[in-house]
Amino acid sequence: MSEQRGAPGVVRVIGTGLIGASLGLALGRRGVDVVLEDPSPTAVALARDLGAGRVGVDDDPPPDLVVVAAPPDVAATVVVGALTRWPDAVVTDVASVKTSVLAAVRSAVGPRRSGQLVRYVGSHPMAGRERSGAVAAQADLFEGRSWVVCPGPQAVPEATELVRATAALAGAAPVTMSPEEHDRAVAVVSHAPQVAASLVAGRLRDLPDPAVSLSGQGLRDVTRIAASDPLLWTQILTGNADAVLPVLDALAADLEEVRSALRTLLAETAAPRQEASRDGAPRGVLARAVARGNAGHARIPGKHGAAPTAYGSVVVLVPDEPGALGRLFQDMGVAGINLEDLHLEHGIGQPVGLAELAVLPSAVERLQQVLTDKGWRVHPPG
Amino acid sequence: MSEQRGAPGVVRVIGTGLIGASLGLALGRRGVDVVLEDPSPTAVALARDLGAGRVGVDDDPPPDLVVVAAPPDVAATVVVGALTRWPDAVVTDVASVKTSVLAAVRSAVGPRRSGQLVRYVGSHPMAGRERSGAVAAQADLFEGRSWVVCPGPQAVPEATELVRATAALAGAAPVTMSPEEHDRAVAVVSHAPQVAASLVAGRLRDLPDPAVSLSGQGLRDVTRIAASDPLLWTQILTGNADAVLPVLDALAADLEEVRSALRTLLAETAAPRQEASRDGAPRGVLARAVARGNAGHARIPGKHGAAPTAYGSVVVLVPDEPGALGRLFQDMGVAGINLEDLHLEHGIGQPVGLAELAVLPSAVERLQQVLTDKGWRVHPPG
Repeated sequence: MSEQRGAPGVVRVIGTGLIGASLGLALGRRGVDVVLEDPSPTAVALARDLGAGRVGVDDDPPPDLVVVAAPPDVAATVVVGALTRWPDAVVTDVASVKTSVLAAVRSAVGPRRSGQLVRYVGSHPMAGRERSGAVAAQADLFEGRSWVVCPGPQAVPEATELVRATAALAGAAPVTMSPEEHDRAVAVVSHAPQVAASLVAGRLRDLPDPAVSLSGQGLRDVTRIAASDPLLWTQILTGNADAVLPVLDALAADLEEVRSALRTLLAETAAPRQEASRDGAPRGVLARAVARGNAGHARIPGKHGAAPTAYGSVVVLVPDEPGALGRLFQDMGVAGINLEDLHLEHGIGQPVGLAELAVLPSAVERLQQVLTDKGWRVHPPG
Repeated sequence: MSEQRGAPGVVRVIGTGLIGASLGLALGRRGVDVVLEDPSPTAVALARDLGAGRVGVDDDPPPDLVVVAAPPDVAATVVVGALTRWPDAVVTDVASVKTSVLAAVRSAVGPRRSGQLVRYVGSHPMAGRERSGAVAAQADLFEGRSWVVCPGPQAVPEATELVRATAALAGAAPVTMSPEEHDRAVAVVSHAPQVAASLVAGRLRDLPDPAVSLSGQGLRDVTRIAASDPLLWTQILTGNADAVLPVLDALAADLEEVRSALRTLLAETAAPRQEASRDGAPRGVLARAVARGNAGHARIPGKHGAAPTAYGSVVVLVPDEPGALGRLFQDMGVAGINLEDLHLEHGIGQPVGLAELAVLPSAVERLQQVLTDKGWRVHPPG
């Protein structure tokens, strides 16, 4: 219950897209009076009809908190408007970039109204979907996600606390970080990976059909987020250019090392005798690049923030028919074994798939036994 | 049954790692006499104990087909040895690169024994795991996967047919392609994505812990294959340097466009008045990069070779407890609705997850109804 201490009574959500409407749904369920606003009358009516809150009227009570869920490139303008319209409200925004929004807010407020900055605390819920708009909204969009809260130097602790309490009320785990720390972090864990995925996927455009047909699960994983919205990502990359550019520069340097190693290898092939003395070096560069990827990958938290290596796994062949996965998980459930993670792999044109079940290491042997006894085709972990 | 026409009676598998042992298991089940060989006595004994075949003896009948499942960098040498040892056998290898192996075989055979080349047909099963060794072998490793068959110019059709028939017998879908076509294709759909994933993951090594903790599902997907084996990938990238380098060069050029756009944007911020006239260009570059990624991503075949857009989806909140997924899929199965694909998303430190269920579009509405009736928290597709 301590998370709800200082929770807001009235929240005004400006911008009723995926994040704004989802937040309205989440807070409404927890008894918050959510007032919706959007430049598009259709968008705000849709969000209201979906249950995200009520449409604002002239004699509304002033909000305790204003959440600006506008696109990143207008967030600062809307924040500044809100600070002026509601002189007692705390104001936050949910843009994926924080330093540039804070700088724009500070610049627009100017020195004479800089006292308003005590009430502004930017934030960023780490929740999103490849789909957008209120129609994709979910009351549980924030459940279990981090919600980064990024107070600037002028923000008062009470303002930061209200934003944290609201994030917790929406189901998220609030994490406080400076705007700069946030931006540097998302540049590496989100923005640069998006660029890499988009560029790798972009290379498929001109590939002949038979070549594309060799695509496997690895490529599907690497490029899943390449389906994201170009306009939104232009705003995000533009807003975080300062932090993203050094990461892309470092990636370009890493890539140049790999390319240089490949060029050396090709030169060796063309003139084997002259280049033989440099034999070890290019292969070392390639192996090191992949090994560094191993090391970085091992740091990524899995479910519940645990390291991915904390789980054991069992691979099961699953026939492609209604209820097959149901029977599998039913059999696991009956044995009291919880599924921690799951990876499905599909063949092409074949009526079977492989399910890789991640469970606590202590449960691996028993799971193999239970599933084998039930007639499943089970493979031990490699 | 036509796939089994001309299937081999005796197959010798040289190299009893993941691929060799899995092939032995698969062919053994179909009545083929599989003879195993490996430079490591322990490895061959392990593969035999796992049921992958029998260990060769001196008076073995000559094989119809020799499958060289050795590491890429020794494949050619072993192929040439096999062509000489068994003068009537067809010989294939399963290395992930084909042109360089063919060139090395041709060069080692020399002009006077070039007649042997009619019996060599390289191939590449598009199957693998992040794990290696016979202990990870699966009889169904090839089920539903493509197995690319790459005859060189000298190979006779009968040899190609025998390799195709064997691939089909192992459960794979044989696809014939020239070695050059194969190498150019895998450079784009497999080798360059591996490099990108490794480099993106490598950037996580020096990140502070709080920053790493913001990692989401997107990063996990992009970097999953970054856990792959450095030695194997050094051999693959070395063997396919000719085809991989141009793809990485193109990616580097694409990346430089994005970096240049970001530099322009930062210069604009530093001196807004002077640079205002160039406003539209850098944002256009960023949007185009992401949009090209959309277009490339849309070409990747999903399960059963169908386009990923062919499915509708339903998102369901799943409590993190034994049997919860079991009940969900049981409820789907009872309704006769087949799960075509599944994506699980996990929160951090929260006892719930989201399951995105992909089903035939015609089943979306009924699935929502069925699951809602059973008490599941269901979200419509966005």
